[in-house]
Amino acid sequence: MKLKYFPIAIIVTCLTTLDVAANQTPSFSKKDLKIAAELRDQALEGSKDYEIVESLTTEVGPRMAGTPGDAAAVKWGVAKLKELGFDKVWTEPVTFPTWKRGVETAEVIAPYPQPLVITALGFSVATSEEGLTAEIVQFDDLDALEKAPDNAAEGKIVFIRNRMERARDGSGYGPAVAARGSGASEAAKKGALGILIRSIGTDTDRMAHTGMMRYEEGIEKIPAAALSAPDADLLENMIRRGKSVTVSMTIGAKSGDAYTSHNVIGEITGSEKPEEYVIIGAHLDSWDLGTGALDDGAGIGITAAAAKLILGLPQRPKRSIRVIMFANEEQGLVGGKAYADAHKDDVQNIITAAESDFGAGKIWRIDSKVKPEALPAVKQMVEVMKPLGIAYGNNEAGGGPDLIPLRGKGISVFSLRQDGTDYFDYHHTPNDTLDKIDPEALRQNTAAYVIFAYLSAQFDGDFGSGFHQK
Amino acid sequence: MKLKYFPIAIIVTCLTTLDVAANQTPSFSKKDLKIAAELRDQALEGSKDYEIVESLTTEVGPRMAGTPGDAAAVKWGVAKLKELGFDKVWTEPVTFPTWKRGVETAEVIAPYPQPLVITALGFSVATSEEGLTAEIVQFDDLDALEKAPDNAAEGKIVFIRNRMERARDGSGYGPAVAARGSGASEAAKKGALGILIRSIGTDTDRMAHTGMMRYEEGIEKIPAAALSAPDADLLENMIRRGKSVTVSMTIGAKSGDAYTSHNVIGEITGSEKPEEYVIIGAHLDSWDLGTGALDDGAGIGITAAAAKLILGLPQRPKRSIRVIMFANEEQGLVGGKAYADAHKDDVQNIITAAESDFGAGKIWRIDSKVKPEALPAVKQMVEVMKPLGIAYGNNEAGGGPDLIPLRGKGISVFSLRQDGTDYFDYHHTPNDTLDKIDPEALRQNTAAYVIFAYLSAQFDGDFGSGFHQK
Repeated sequence: MKLKYFPIAIIVTCLTTLDVAANQTPSFSKKDLKIAAELRDQALEGSKDYEIVESLTTEVGPRMAGTPGDAAAVKWGVAKLKELGFDKVWTEPVTFPTWKRGVETAEVIAPYPQPLVITALGFSVATSEEGLTAEIVQFDDLDALEKAPDNAAEGKIVFIRNRMERARDGSGYGPAVAARGSGASEAAKKGALGILIRSIGTDTDRMAHTGMMRYEEGIEKIPAAALSAPDADLLENMIRRGKSVTVSMTIGAKSGDAYTSHNVIGEITGSEKPEEYVIIGAHLDSWDLGTGALDDGAGIGITAAAAKLILGLPQRPKRSIRVIMFANEEQGLVGGKAYADAHKDDVQNIITAAESDFGAGKIWRIDSKVKPEALPAVKQMVEVMKPLGIAYGNNEAGGGPDLIPLRGKGISVFSLRQDGTDYFDYHHTPNDTLDKIDPEALRQNTAAYVIFAYLSAQFDGDFGSGFHQK
Repeated sequence: MKLKYFPIAIIVTCLTTLDVAANQTPSFSKKDLKIAAELRDQALEGSKDYEIVESLTTEVGPRMAGTPGDAAAVKWGVAKLKELGFDKVWTEPVTFPTWKRGVETAEVIAPYPQPLVITALGFSVATSEEGLTAEIVQFDDLDALEKAPDNAAEGKIVFIRNRMERARDGSGYGPAVAARGSGASEAAKKGALGILIRSIGTDTDRMAHTGMMRYEEGIEKIPAAALSAPDADLLENMIRRGKSVTVSMTIGAKSGDAYTSHNVIGEITGSEKPEEYVIIGAHLDSWDLGTGALDDGAGIGITAAAAKLILGLPQRPKRSIRVIMFANEEQGLVGGKAYADAHKDDVQNIITAAESDFGAGKIWRIDSKVKPEALPAVKQMVEVMKPLGIAYGNNEAGGGPDLIPLRGKGISVFSLRQDGTDYFDYHHTPNDTLDKIDPEALRQNTAAYVIFAYLSAQFDGDFGSGFHQK
């Protein structure tokens, strides 16, 4: 009996293990959890995170898509990943239209002549060389502009004055940024010759926030710029006096030829299932005004440094880990789309993914987007993050801007949500510089990413990637 | 007997009163102290302070000495003082050399090409139109530059990297600002072609702080500019890598013709001793980069609003009160010197004086510069200020920059010392705008000034003005 049943017992045990691993309650081994905790503590003691972002901002600086800084950043990224000892480093092409900033000045002509601080929105057309001079017509927000009569801005410069709300999760951005994206075409529909918006930001610094705008097809393209917050206040204060306010604005921006940049990828090659991989990443490009420390040098530093810690383990994790430095996120998630296109036939190999692109504030919450069976494992992962002050949120993670195209193809993603209370003080301004990064907060981020990347690479189950979750 | 002695008793009483008033222990009457407390409480409830600085920054804005903004400010000042109902409003001429900012750009050429944010220092000479391109040589501070060998900066651009310390009383300014004032000539003595200093400021914003510099006679004049703090960090980080750093800077500033502006003066004419007067004031000019809200629109608002409260009393105070809006403080206390010159023969009429020129932070301390016999009265005055959180400091008051020339002639002054913790975050930058003013703190300032001005005008004694104290 004993002998007879013994093989059956083994079979049963094996089946159970397989079941657990594949479908029911996959979990991390005690050993892996211990290694993850050790990696976390190493990250808190100090890793390459700050050094990497210092290197990028100092040696490259501004790296707007299609500029010499973009090319320098790609070169830097390849060299940095090789220097860090990744098993494989390569680039993949990303092609897009380009735009260049030129002169950008504005001034109140009447009734109270004063200069104004503005910056052109990305892909704005230029004014004539002499500039555009017209009366200002003020709207409370984009909605008010849209609802205005057809000729409400005839021959005028529209000024949209609404303010972005400050919030830890950045939730003020969405409602405010619509004015930046589509304000120009909506203003043109009402007969406007140009548009000035209050900067999409939460600061009161005399710096305007740039960012993308888009022209609606078939609608006249009018020049579009953002005013710094104090300048928007100034215009409001002048307008409140009931007098006609005339502004002159000159924008010399222009669109250029198509340009091919590159996603830069470094791989830690897995020891058991090398074709399956976890993505951690950030975008390599920045806007042109700052040195792109918060947006998104911090993400580059965090994710590359997390991987570097895993490279320091005595053996490679089971699955591969790819650090992707995405090209041209700022002008339309172009690098993320290119990656999803290039890898559309092997997307099932992506076990899960997370992008760091919300500055350098501490992570306070982690959201997942996994199949229900993987949730207990997620809870185990969160336990290792708990000493970092990170709590579990929900199973509706977005994953980060450059992962939107891959998420659309059904991959699992995680959102390691950073405290963004101050992020929009600096976002897309000259003020996005290295000094805004708190090295301690950066270390906390790296600690969370190394837990996420290592455990995901070791996971015996799967998170539902390739199952086309929506 | 009765009849005989009656007149004597009156005489004795009168003598005693005179004694107290002139030499021994002059004090304020209970009635005056009560009125001062009522004025204080009115100021806290709300006066014209914020409205005045809002008007100046909105309707005039930047008003650098010798610019159209200067002329507009003088016109504004006269109109505003008349509108407020002063008994007399007049101007006194102030003549000075002028300087105009032009283009100001800089960039690292090698090894890591990046733009730098700079601003020319006041009265810097220009570079050639093509700019000045040279290697950077870094010094820890002005002292290190002065002690360097004669050829230490031969053919180079000097970079002075020391940082200003943050302090409530602004005590970090003095040690740091020496590099701005005399750095150019010291650098030229070591063979430099140009100089860049870390901005004299406490912020980390990507804005450079302007301010006056002076060339030493007989020393070659080289172009001088300030770098924003993040740009100074960037240069330091590049230099730390041990490579030669080459920078190109272009400055288009130029000196202009002499210009005559005006001190603008509003007087509340005293009811008993109209020829004697108390000065409260601020400077009307600003630098060109911001709208001069903190420096010194706030002082204009505080002092004019304090006087306006006194104008609202049922009767004029015993002595006169003059609100002086000084011309061109920024480029050498020119308005203050002109006032002292113009009034050198009747300086003994000035009972005491205080200038508000340190932003809009709350007053935390009051210092006096009075004869010892007046100190008990000062203590009485401070009692009325106590509910405002103001304590007495010492009897070594400076009085404010525009009062230095008058103080040199022996007048009594008071320093109502503001909390300047954040003042040098914005000082002399584009960021000096209305939004940086906390209306509540402004009201506290006005409350203190109204106590000071009213009680000083009512004082039966004197503070020692005209006694040529040093």
